[in-house]
Formats: sequence, structure tokens, C-alpha cells
Amino acid sequence: MVMHSGGLEYDGARPTVTIGIDVGGTNIRAAVVDGEGVIVDAASAPTPRSAESLAAAIVGVVHELAGPESVREDGTVDSLAGNYSIGAVGLAVAGFVNRERTIVRYAPHLPWLDAPVARDLSAVLGLPVVLEHDANAAAVAEYRYGAAAGGRNVVVIALGTGIGGAFVQEGNLYRGSFGVAPELGHIQVVPEGRSCACGKRGCWERYCSGTALVDTAIEHLAKSPRQFTTLSREVATDPAGLTGRRVAGAAQAGDALALAVMADFSQWLGVGISLVADVFDPDLIVISGGVAQSAPLFLDAAREHYQRLATGAGYRSMPRIRSTQLGESAGLIGAAELARISLSST
Amino acid sequence: MVMHSGGLEYDGARPTVTIGIDVGGTNIRAAVVDGEGVIVDAASAPTPRSAESLAAAIVGVVHELAGPESVREDGTVDSLAGNYSIGAVGLAVAGFVNRERTIVRYAPHLPWLDAPVARDLSAVLGLPVVLEHDANAAAVAEYRYGAAAGGRNVVVIALGTGIGGAFVQEGNLYRGSFGVAPELGHIQVVPEGRSCACGKRGCWERYCSGTALVDTAIEHLAKSPRQFTTLSREVATDPAGLTGRRVAGAAQAGDALALAVMADFSQWLGVGISLVADVFDPDLIVISGGVAQSAPLFLDAAREHYQRLATGAGYRSMPRIRSTQLGESAGLIGAAELARISLSST
Repeated sequence: MVMHSGGLEYDGARPTVTIGIDVGGTNIRAAVVDGEGVIVDAASAPTPRSAESLAAAIVGVVHELAGPESVREDGTVDSLAGNYSIGAVGLAVAGFVNRERTIVRYAPHLPWLDAPVARDLSAVLGLPVVLEHDANAAAVAEYRYGAAAGGRNVVVIALGTGIGGAFVQEGNLYRGSFGVAPELGHIQVVPEGRSCACGKRGCWERYCSGTALVDTAIEHLAKSPRQFTTLSREVATDPAGLTGRRVAGAAQAGDALALAVMADFSQWLGVGISLVADVFDPDLIVISGGVAQSAPLFLDAAREHYQRLATGAGYRSMPRIRSTQLGESAGLIGAAELARISLSST
Repeated sequence: MVMHSGGLEYDGARPTVTIGIDVGGTNIRAAVVDGEGVIVDAASAPTPRSAESLAAAIVGVVHELAGPESVREDGTVDSLAGNYSIGAVGLAVAGFVNRERTIVRYAPHLPWLDAPVARDLSAVLGLPVVLEHDANAAAVAEYRYGAAAGGRNVVVIALGTGIGGAFVQEGNLYRGSFGVAPELGHIQVVPEGRSCACGKRGCWERYCSGTALVDTAIEHLAKSPRQFTTLSREVATDPAGLTGRRVAGAAQAGDALALAVMADFSQWLGVGISLVADVFDPDLIVISGGVAQSAPLFLDAAREHYQRLATGAGYRSMPRIRSTQLGESAGLIGAAELARISLSST
């Protein structure tokens, strides 16, 4: 099921656009993005489980956006014939991408392992394809068009199912020596703490993510079962149906259990922010990702906690902390931006 | 008490040297360093407690190295008249230095607080003076002449009384937006853990430093008092006399208690190395500082622990881990090197 929405028509010489695609564990979200970071067209599809179907689905959304008249018999895209003059495609992927940004090395929620995704998709589409870690892509977008604009050294902390991190240094992404930096979600913050899918225990994202909101709620109830709130009743009736979004919604409505969960979350965010402030000493930290939608519920408390934890507070300048401006579109806007940058650099 | 050792004489045109000074909480160690990073002359003095005496002591070691015939009546140094043609002085300081490297903002073991040390000393000596955080200075030396040579992104972890950190990125120090980066010692690794002089609890350096070796030994004995080893007897007789160096020495001699302490230390070093590997994704990590002298006692075990903890191990390239080559002289050699670099850039 590919949805198609909106569309723009150009007369005469058409400006080159790029397509940004956010390949998430649940959905593939794609958009045509112009040279000002504006989404002019969008499409999406559910993420299939096999590598073949995943490639087909990505090709599908590109064909959808490009328009049927641009698709040649072999499946390549004739960017002169379709809806847009498409210069390149950028993919934002929740996983390790190699430093050359050609291979997805490891993506826990996707069927790619050491997969030369850029080359393969480029061959199928007949278009240049650029890969990037999703948090890096989001950071590029926030830096160009959003909350990270004007920062000298900026760390983006993306709070979603897990935690993604990105470090924009004087306008450039820092990718580390092997394309892994900065991996923030699996820093051990609690020795022998909650077990993590990564095989370790006590990882930061087990305490400070959408998933963590659910676990903290269940843990609170296990410790103090005699809480009778809307949320506690929901957990009792349908524990598997609980989501981080639901916990945030309940907190918004003043649910006591949900507010206690949010207070815990704020503390752990403060711990992580102080770590980021110590390690990178940035002038700006941007909180993004799905959970950032609920920033009013936790960001002020997290700030207070962080200010208590930052080393040498009072003897150093401290980074500003802002919430995302581009929301959940940051990843695909950034992927499109990186595709655009790759065009001008070749 | 200023000690003076060695000395070189030049005939004819003399090459410009620089003086590097490591201003530690206990001692001021200074050296004349040549353009190849070689120490050609050295002097030292105990660190006084007041800011005035500290400045006087630093001026004292510079005068000593420059030679009395070079000291003008006003105390400035005539670098043409003395033992060496001294181009500049570099100071390595255990504390926060501002990004412009002119002011010591905060140094827990020194009487400097927002002190314009570079300007003041430069005025007294009549020589350019460059400041740097001691771990940064040590990293510069290791990068130019030691264990960090050839690294693309290198993190230096200096294990001494506390933990110092430095990040050399493609040959340049990364200092962060406010001169604090990377501050590794006070990352919280144990929630509600050991209390720290910084006012927080559970800081990494409270588990992984020379000081931590002592605390861990005492903690082991408190938990299991019926241990009868050489070290346990020493602790019983003179608990205040115990030092990290002594614990390391006992471990070297096979003392069971000291070996257990070292095993704990290795674990915490592994935790910190995995954090550094995740956050910076360097290709090289160098362990330096006084405790690094005992690296054979803990480094292999720390490596093993780190390899278990590194996120996505098996799906990513991992940094090499090396021990210091320049030992405790790294700080002053680096300070001298930075002084030399400042000369060529002006």
C-alpha cells in the first residue's frame, strides 16, 4: 500500500529536487524535497521483513513520487519525463552505515547486514543514492533548516524507540573513524540494569526512550501495585497494548502514574545530557525524535537535573538545550539534503 | 627548592627551544624541549598553595632553566643571553582552560579561578606563554612523538589522581565550544555511587583512577574483613598511608587483595573505554597518566571487558588500545610543543 499525497507542477525548466527516504523499522516514509528543505510531495509504505521486499518497497515509493511516466521498462527512473527533475535519492537508516556511506553494516530492525544498499538501489533506479544514519540525517536537516541552526558544535539526541545521536561540528557531521559516532543509546548508565536487545544491561535507551516509558510504567506498578489511575487500569487490562505515546498522553492528562514515569524519564535525560555536555562540550543540544513531541512534559525537569549533574557547573559555559523544529520529518528532509549535497560535490 | 639537571651547549647560531611546564597539584615540572620533542634540560619545584607563590615558583623554574645571565633586572628573560634561545613557554594545567587558552577558569587542585595566567606570566617573563589543559597537552605529545602517532581520531584517557581526557581529531585537539571537552572523569557510571569532590556521586574517576584503587581496596576489606594479605595488613596498620601506587605494587607482587582491586579497576576501565568507543568512535585510544605505568596489570582484562560492552561488536571496526609511550613527561613535552606551534603560527 503506497500512499501518494499532493504534487507540484512546473512549467518550462524545472529545478532539480531530491528524494529523501526515512527507512524505519515500521514504515518507509519518502518525500520530494526542494532546495529550501521544503517537502513538496510525500509517499509512504510499511517496511517489509525481507531484504528483497524492502528494496522493492523503496523502489516503489520512488516510482510513485517520480510518476509512472518516468519509469522505464527496466525500472530505472527517467528524471526528465516524470513529475520532477529528480537529481538523487537519500536514505536515512536506523543502523550503522560505513564511513563511505555505501553499506548498511548493521541495522537491528531492518533485514540488512553488510548490505551494499547504495550501490544496489542506485543500479535499480538509475539515480545516485546516498546513505546516512537516521540521526545524522535528522541532524543535517535541523542544522540547515531547524533547531540546530547557528550552532557551532551541536549534538542531536533523537529519542524514539531507542536513542540516536549525531554530532554536527562546525557544520559538518562527525562520523568517527568507522561511521559509528556518536552511538549514545547503549552507553551503560546502570550497572546490572535493565537488559537490552543489544545483549548488554543498563543501556541509556532502556531508561530514556519511548520504549523505556512503557517499561518504567510497568516497573512502577510492580513496585507499588495499589495505584488506581487511568493508566494503571489500562496496564492491568492490556499490558501489551501500552505504548510510550500512550504514557505521554496520560501524563498530559495529569495521570499520577504517568507523571511519575515522566519524572523518572526526565532524570535519565538529565543524566544523558550531562554526559553529552561533558564529553562533547557543545554550545547546543537538540532533542528530537518521536518522544520530543512531548518535550513540554519533561524538558524543563531534565534541564534542572542536568544542571545539577554537569561537571564544574558555575565555572563553565553551558550548552543551550532546544527541542526539534522539524519533528519526525527531520530524517527524510536531511536525507534529501545530503542527496542534494552529493550532487553539488560531484 | 628548585632542582636543575643536565644542560646542552650550542656553538654559534642556536636553535630555538621552548619550555614546557606541567603545573600539577603537587609539583611543578618544567623542561627545555627541542624541536624533536626531546627533553634537553629539566627543573622542578613543589606547587605552592597561593596564586602569588605559584606564579613566583613558575617564574623561578623558567629563570633556572634560562640561566641567571639571561634574567634582566625586571625579571624578564633575555633569550639571547642565557643557556638557550627560548622562543615561548607552554603550561599544562590540570583544570578548565578557556577556548582561547588565555585563562584558567577552574582548577580544583590549584589556586587559580578565572585567572588570566597566560597574560600575567607573559608580562613577567617577557616571553609568549601558551596554556593548555594537561590531558590535551599530553595528547599533543603522544600524537607527535608517542603512542597516538598515526591515529586519525584518537582519544587519550589519562589515569592519575583523577581522569583526564583529550580528543585529537585528524591531528587537531578538539576543545569543544567552551574549552571543556572532553571531560571524562565525572561521567556518572554508578547512580548513587561513591561521592566525589565535584559534588556528584558515582563519577567514573571514583572507580577508575589512582585514588580509586585505594577506595576499592578499603571497600573490599570492609565487605570481607577476613583477608590476610600483605596489603590488608598495611591497610589495617596505616589506612591513610595507602596509595594507588602501593596497591599496584602489591598486585605486581601477587597480593590477592590487590589483584582483586585491579580486577575491579579493569572492569571500570572497560566500561569507560566502551563509552569512549561508542561516543567518539576513534581508531585509537591511548591510556596515559601515572596509573598507566601499571598497564600490564590491568590493560588486557580491560580490553576483554570493553569488547564485551562495545555496542554492535562484530558489526563494526574497533579502536586499537595502546599504553602511553612518553609516560609522565607527556604533559610538559606537549606544552612545549604547543608553545612551539604558537610561534610558527604568529
